[in-house]
Order: sequence, then C-alpha cells, then structure tokens
Amino acid sequence: MKKQISPFSVANWRRRLRVALGEEPADLVLVDGTIVDVLAGDTYVADVAIADGVIAGVGQYAEGHVSIDLAGRWLAPSFIDAHVHTESALVWVPEFARAVVPHGTGAIVTDPHEIANIAGLPGLEVMREAARGLPMGIFFTIPSCVPASAWESPGANFGVAEIAAMAVWPECVGLGELMSFPDVLAGHDGIAAKLSESQGMRRDGHAPGLRGPALQAYVGSGPGSDHEATTYDEALEKLRAGQMVMIREGSSARNLEALLPLVTDATYPRCCFCSDDRDVHALLHVGHMDHTLRLAIELGLDPVRAIRMATWTPADYWRLEGWGAVAPGFQANLVVLDDLRSVQVGMTMYQGQVVAEAGMIVPGAMPAELPAPAGLLNSVHMAPLMLRNLRLDPANARQAVGAIPGEIATRWLQVEPEIRGDEAVASVPRDLLKLVCVERHHATGRVGVGYVQGFGLQRGALASSIAHDAHNIVAVGADDADILRAIAMVAENQGGLAAVADGEILAHMALPIAGILSDLPLAETAAAYERLEDAARVLGSRLPSPFGLLAFMALSVIPEARVTDKGFVTV
Amino acid sequence: MKKQISPFSVANWRRRLRVALGEEPADLVLVDGTIVDVLAGDTYVADVAIADGVIAGVGQYAEGHVSIDLAGRWLAPSFIDAHVHTESALVWVPEFARAVVPHGTGAIVTDPHEIANIAGLPGLEVMREAARGLPMGIFFTIPSCVPASAWESPGANFGVAEIAAMAVWPECVGLGELMSFPDVLAGHDGIAAKLSESQGMRRDGHAPGLRGPALQAYVGSGPGSDHEATTYDEALEKLRAGQMVMIREGSSARNLEALLPLVTDATYPRCCFCSDDRDVHALLHVGHMDHTLRLAIELGLDPVRAIRMATWTPADYWRLEGWGAVAPGFQANLVVLDDLRSVQVGMTMYQGQVVAEAGMIVPGAMPAELPAPAGLLNSVHMAPLMLRNLRLDPANARQAVGAIPGEIATRWLQVEPEIRGDEAVASVPRDLLKLVCVERHHATGRVGVGYVQGFGLQRGALASSIAHDAHNIVAVGADDADILRAIAMVAENQGGLAAVADGEILAHMALPIAGILSDLPLAETAAAYERLEDAARVLGSRLPSPFGLLAFMALSVIPEARVTDKGFVTV
Repeated sequence: MKKQISPFSVANWRRRLRVALGEEPADLVLVDGTIVDVLAGDTYVADVAIADGVIAGVGQYAEGHVSIDLAGRWLAPSFIDAHVHTESALVWVPEFARAVVPHGTGAIVTDPHEIANIAGLPGLEVMREAARGLPMGIFFTIPSCVPASAWESPGANFGVAEIAAMAVWPECVGLGELMSFPDVLAGHDGIAAKLSESQGMRRDGHAPGLRGPALQAYVGSGPGSDHEATTYDEALEKLRAGQMVMIREGSSARNLEALLPLVTDATYPRCCFCSDDRDVHALLHVGHMDHTLRLAIELGLDPVRAIRMATWTPADYWRLEGWGAVAPGFQANLVVLDDLRSVQVGMTMYQGQVVAEAGMIVPGAMPAELPAPAGLLNSVHMAPLMLRNLRLDPANARQAVGAIPGEIATRWLQVEPEIRGDEAVASVPRDLLKLVCVERHHATGRVGVGYVQGFGLQRGALASSIAHDAHNIVAVGADDADILRAIAMVAENQGGLAAVADGEILAHMALPIAGILSDLPLAETAAAYERLEDAARVLGSRLPSPFGLLAFMALSVIPEARVTDKGFVTV
Repeated sequence: MKKQISPFSVANWRRRLRVALGEEPADLVLVDGTIVDVLAGDTYVADVAIADGVIAGVGQYAEGHVSIDLAGRWLAPSFIDAHVHTESALVWVPEFARAVVPHGTGAIVTDPHEIANIAGLPGLEVMREAARGLPMGIFFTIPSCVPASAWESPGANFGVAEIAAMAVWPECVGLGELMSFPDVLAGHDGIAAKLSESQGMRRDGHAPGLRGPALQAYVGSGPGSDHEATTYDEALEKLRAGQMVMIREGSSARNLEALLPLVTDATYPRCCFCSDDRDVHALLHVGHMDHTLRLAIELGLDPVRAIRMATWTPADYWRLEGWGAVAPGFQANLVVLDDLRSVQVGMTMYQGQVVAEAGMIVPGAMPAELPAPAGLLNSVHMAPLMLRNLRLDPANARQAVGAIPGEIATRWLQVEPEIRGDEAVASVPRDLLKLVCVERHHATGRVGVGYVQGFGLQRGALASSIAHDAHNIVAVGADDADILRAIAMVAENQGGLAAVADGEILAHMALPIAGILSDLPLAETAAAYERLEDAARVLGSRLPSPFGLLAFMALSVIPEARVTDKGFVTV
C-alpha cells in the first residue's frame, strides 16, 4: 500500500457520505459563498458542507452544527507555496506558520536544504516533528545536493541512504532541487545513484539560465519542475522541455513580472507560483502567496486562474491528493476572501477549523505546546580560534572575492596584497577586507582566509553562522581582533550574527536553532536583524543588505570566487 | 522504491546525455518536423534526437545513425485512450494493437473487466503476458466490480487480495471503473475494503447520470475520473466535483458532440478523450483516437488542444511518467501527421522504432511469436443441458424483459403468459420469446428462463457466450429445441455465437479465448460477426444489432429487468 498523507478512515467516510447526502448535519456549513472553482476556472455560489475536516459536499446544504454566512464573499482553496525554504525567514517552523497562515497559506512544499547541511537526517526529523500539529500542511522535498560541493564542509552528508529513509515519510513529496547541474550533465556516479533511488518520485529542478542542448540533457535526466527561470525565453524553453514552471516571487529573487507573459490560455496548466524564500521583513509587512496573487492580478492575470496557480496546480504537481480545490473529498483547507481581485484574506481554515481571522492566528489554532528543537540546539562545535589562525599568507593574497551588491554571484579579482611584515592585511582605503570562514560543525580547526572587495567597512567586523550552504562561520572585517571577537560572539550564542568595532559588540543576535534560526517570535527576530544591519551601516557598509551578502561569501557552487573553510576557491 | 514503468538505466541515461549534448550521434533523428507541443499548446519546428527509445533532445541535431526528414509534416506524441475495454472489439490483445497502432495509438488504459469476470487474476496474467512486446503501451486498471452483483455468477471473484496482487504490476495504473455506485452511497463493507486497499492510487469512476448530493457523496469517496457523462450539465457538475472528465466517443456510446462545449480555455486541462469500446467495424473502417480527434477538430476544437486531450492529459492523469509529450526524457512514442487538422497519421513510432506506416503495421513491429493464451482457452464448463431445463413455469411467466433497440437499459413488463400444457411457451405473434441464461463457468447446472420482448425473431434461436458481466451463455428463441441447439453449438466452440433455425446451424463463430474473444485476425472476425447478424435478420429480427443487444440481457446491474442463471431479476 502506498504511503498516505491522510489515511482512509471507514468511519469518517461513512459519515461524510451521510453528510453529503443530507442525512446528517455537517460539522460546519459555509453558506452562500462564491466558490472560486479552480477546476472549472470560474466562480459560482454554493454551500460547502464539512465533516471531520474534509469537504463532504458542495451544493445546497441545511445548517450544520456550526454555519458561517459567506454571502458576498469568496471561498477559495487555501494557498500553496510550491517551493520555499522556511530557513530564509530566520524563524523556526511554527513561527513561520504563525506568520503565513493569516495570509491564506494552507500548505508549503519546503526543501530543508539548510538544516540538512547542518544536521542531516536527524535534524530533518526535528523539523518534521516541529511541523506536526501546525495549522497548515508542511510537505518536504529531499535535499539532493548536500554537500553542495567538495569544497565545503557541512555538518552532515545527505546520500542515497538518507534519501531512501526520507522518501517513506508521508509528508515527503519528492526529490528536492537538483542544483548540481554540472554534475548531472557530466553523468556523475553520485547523481546516477540519486536518480536511481528517486525513481517514480517527483524531482524538482534548479538550473538558473540553463538553455539549449544542456537544458535538454538536464531535463531529460528527471527534474520535472524549475523555479530558477528569470526571463520569458528561458521559462518557455523549460516549459517546452517538460518542466512545470514555478514562477518565483520571493524576497531575493522576484521573477513574476518578467515571467507573467508566459501564462496564456495555452500554457497556464504548466505554470504555478512559489516564493523560494520570504525574509522576516516580507513576512511581517508584505505577505506570502496572497501578495504574489495580488501582484499577478494587478499585472492582468485573471483572479481565478491566478488562484489556480497557487492551489490546484502545485497540489496536482506534487501529488498532494485531496488538496487545492473546493470539491468533495478534499481537505477543508480554505480561505475566505473579502475581495477577490485584491486577495483580501478574511479567514483561513485548515481541516475544517477556522485558524486565522482578520490577519491573526485564532487562539487555540497553534498547538498548546511546541516541541523544543533539542536536536538542533548547541550545533556550534568550533576548535579554539587564535589571532594567528587569521593570518593571510601574501603568496595566497594576489586574488580577492569581488562581492556584487544584491547578487549571489561574485567576481574573481586579481589584486595587489597589502603587506605588513610577513603577512597580507586589510586595506580600508582600497576596500580590501579580510574574509574568514571557520569550520564549526566538527571542531576541525580548519580556517579559510582571503581577501574580499565590496563590503566597504571602514572599521570593525561582521560575523555570521548563516553561510550557505555548509553554514560554517563566515566573517568579514577590517581588523583581525574584531573579526576574532565577532566570531567568538557568534560561537558563544551557539550561532547567530554579530557586528563588532574596536573590541566592542555593537549588535548581536542568537540563532540557536541549528545556528541559523531564531527561537524568538517573528517581530523580535526582525527587530534584532535590523539592529545588526544598522550596525553594519555604522561600520561604513553601503550595501543594501550586508549580512544578506555575507551569507553567500562561502557558497562554493556559484561563480566566480569564494572563501570556504578550505580556503580561497574559484568556481 | 516505487514500481516503475521504465526502470532507470545508468548506461542509457549517460548515453542520452551525450546525445542531448551533441557529443554522440542519436539512433534516430527526426529532422525539421513541426512539433505538436502539447505542453506549451502550440507548434514549432525542431529536430528530435532519440537514443535507446527515449527522446534525448529537441532542438537542432546533426544526423543520427538514421535520420527521417519530416519537413512540412507534424510530429505529435502518439495517442492515448484513457479508458477502453479491448474485449469489445472481439479480438485478442495483439490483434487489437495491430488494428489501432496504424491509427496513431501509442497507449491504452484498459479495464479488463470481462476477462476478470471469466477468469479472475490468472486470466489477467494471461492478458498481461499477451500485452508484452506489442508496439504500444498497454496499461491496466484493476477491475473493481467483479461480480457485478449477487444476482450474477461469473467465473471468478475479484476481491481485495486480487486488487493488492495486481496493484504491484508496473503496468497497473489504478483502480478501474467503480460502477457499483449504489453500494458506494450505501457505504458497503466491500466498497470500504476496496477503497482502503486502493489508497493513493488513481481510481476511475463510472456513474451514469449521477448528480447532486449523490454525486458529491460518490466523488468524495475517491473516483477521480468519469467517462459516463452524456450531457453538458452532467459533465460540468462532475468536473466541478473534482473529476477528470473523460469524453467518450465509442462504438456504442458517442458523447463527443454533446460534451465538446464543455471544453473551454478554463476547463480543457480537466478533460480528455476515451473510447470505452471500439467494435470490429470501427477498428476496420473508422479508426480509433485519430477518428475522435478528427471529429473534435471538425466540431471546432483547436488541433493542438485536441491532441493534448489524447496525449498529455490522460498520461498525466494516469501518472504515466514520460508518456504523452515530445520532450527530453519522454518515451519516443510519436506519430507523424501528414496533415494536422484532418489527423492524417502517416507513421507511428513506438520507443523510437517506426511500427506503422501508411496505415499498416511495419514488418517486424509485432513480436515474432505471440504466446498462446492457453490459460484462457477451454473456459466453457457447462452441465449437461436438456430440453426440460428450458421449461418456463407459468407462475414465473407473468413478466418479461422489455428489450429496447440500441440501449442497454430494459423495461420490466407485465405480460399474459402463453400457456401450452403445464408450461409457458414463446409466442411469436406477440413477440414473446424465451430468454435463457445457462451458468457455464463451474458446471453448476443453473439455468434461468424467462420471457423477453423486442427481439422480433419469427423462428429459431440465437445464443452467445458474450453476456455481460458474468459471461454465462445467454440465448433467445422462438423454439426450445433451437435454443438448445444454439447453446450446444456455443458450448462446442468453447464459446462463441450461434444462430439456429429448425435444428440447423445458420451461422456460428468460435470465440475460444475466454469464450468472448476470437483467435482470428480482425477482418475474419468482422466477417464472421456480420454473417451472424445477417442470420439473425433472416430469422426475423429487425434490431440494428441483435447479438449486441443479446449480450446485455443477463446484466443484472442496469435497470429494469434481466434473466441471469439465477432466474428473472428486476433491478
């Protein structure tokens, strides 16, 4: 028997039959709402009878144990984010749910790539546990590219055995974004093993800019979807090649406006929406899929079609049977819209319960006790770090990572080192700072040091244990002692961010969950993060998001240059 | 690991990569065809490179080991029949394939309901064996309603154990048409067990005319598709309720014209085509899915959209991964159309091989040796039948089955019996004939006898071992001796049809495979069948298809009256 999201209950089925047939009152009847019918692509007025969290019937139904009058309002399936990393929001899974559910989100498909890098399968089990009992569906894809490369040292590896172990989770919907497309094109053994193990599963792609014969080779290897297209032509080519195009509108990458012209009468069934990431600011002030829908409708997309692309289409693609439509047998995961075109979410229902109203989680909708993520705490294991570990050999200092504001790509620069004594040091006037990456998972004592240009610090240092993908501790600074102090602060917090100048901590925040997530509520997390960004600006940085950029300085799979714990790396 | 239609081969994958990248010649390159892109919903000109039976790339490719110039012609995925009973064609599976492949059919999803009634799971294993190596994909749904009712005596039962055994076949795509909707609505134990066993599978529906609350209750129980809608309103209601609407255009039921208005920009992703049945005449003279497409296009449907509904949509619905599109990684199951709008099939390819050209199967495309269906031969096991077994008690003769030309429904008639001595006999002037059903699977000796009106025979008798759903031997006649003779002829042939008058066989044909299928080629089967229909007309029948109607006279699940081996039954 196949794994089931919602196992079949004979008793519930029989009750649902009686409710559908009008022989027994429903738990809840939603009266006279205008159904957003994402299957027929239109709207119509009807009652919805709900029994045991599932829609028993849509039509004309007598009062239920509870009835809600929806006359003049719209009733749609709650929204589904087809691909998102919750880690990007800096908050833990329950807090993420608390933030997005009032925006009408009923499910996400998340790729727990960051947690997998830090804590492997045991870490994902903690995340899975945290997702239970929340007022939304949390589905997982299996991290497919951990470690990101041989040049990084994550906390854990995620191989074929881990894929097999995770595949049997009912909440697991497929293999996650297959980022290592060069390995795919080269036919690597590791990829072969993962493709073999993931047969019959959905497999998510991730191939920014890939076109032509390479795209044919890549897509023909299995990835059935892609969220990395940024231009119309690229997206159309991927759609033609057989991929579900996930149009991404996130906090970092915003592709909706460029890709919306792709969505026509002929292509819309093969397009859906995803966010990929939502930062704390967006969750606090902007919204989630509701925001994407609002934008899409403003840009001219029919509202029912837009909602289809954030409900039925991702549910159908990910084979979330019984999710994403207002129809009998479907989960009663619904949103009430006070206005259709502006996607004003008045109420969110999950499994037949009202879980958010007027922008707020309803009391009791969240589990009374959230499990402590014990298995993800105390994740920083760093060998003692001394000033001498930060020494940069002049022989290795004729190159620098060229950071580009607002991009995760970097340039590989040739530079003249600033020599003091027998070592290369930072030069503030030339914006040549030191970039340090300290292995922090297994206390190996490995430290990589190099130059970086583009941060613009006039003094002090910044450090972060958010450092894609291996999430070691990365720091940038004008002064070795400040770098050391900032790293020490992050380590002391068991992960986090710190800004230091002249030996003083200007700002810091703890990210004690896996070293990358806050254990605080969203608003406090956002405030702490803003204090850190402000501190970085005080130190002289003119970047829009200095910590955001710092987090990518050790990512060894995006061109052109990085510093990892293994040293200066060119890609 | 999940069952796989096409298991992953690392060597083939690596070769496909090299071919896609242009590093190695393809086995076959289709040059300059106009691709019918069912994913993007349009057409474009490109080359298709094929390696090991799979599409490696679509784009610009150098010559392959073989190249075919398709300039000015269209290249589409080969057609998929979303639901068909091959048994309706009276020919065995390989002969069915031989007939439909030249019409561009690349796959069928067949519900082997008839064979299951006669020979159970072992019979289906024989059918599965026969399907192997044929130049098209043959996928199975699991018969869900065997026996059709407690009033019939099929050769075998098909319960939860059989469902479980068949579910693991890679060729098995789901649970077959759930016809017993009254049992579903009543929440029967047997249905509960089958729904439980079929969790996570696709489940095909079958609920003619079901609407309103009953439809909500039925669809909410699981059936995700339906091919029984005959009106626009019914089809729209089913689509809204969450069902994939399979628009049926068969030999018996033709719903295309009535349902095509349902197919709009908003609904087409939830509509596809199926035939349900194709009789010998249609296979010989009309075609298969190509014919349905031609009709749909003539009725105004966009050709690319029409083809989508006979390729991608059914493949996606049935989760035939890698079927139904011209894209990398897809099976090279293709049709070349000499003309798009008239769906002129010039060539059919299966797994990269040309298997039909100019309306004919290519030599070598069929397996050199077809396995004999030994397990389905000698299926008639009838107890000795005497004239006295055909006696009709006057007490049971105040009612008759009222046959309706061209319909499978009947009327329950009250009649005055024609009494001779102590028994009720046929009355030709009143068109009151005897209808007999003889149990033939387990030699139980059970015989049902009743009156029937509507066949119009002036003399003689007709007998058939095609008798839905249990496929006992059914006969109609004006004379008991002729009825006995006709049944004896059918039994002697180990199944078949016979027409008898005055003790003489006017025509007969053997259907030795399970007692319902010919072992002859299509044309000979068609000719024999026509001789029988002609003979029935000689006997006085004015029906359009007397044997066609006779085959439904023992079907105990369609209103209003029948004669089964258990006697006169009202529904």
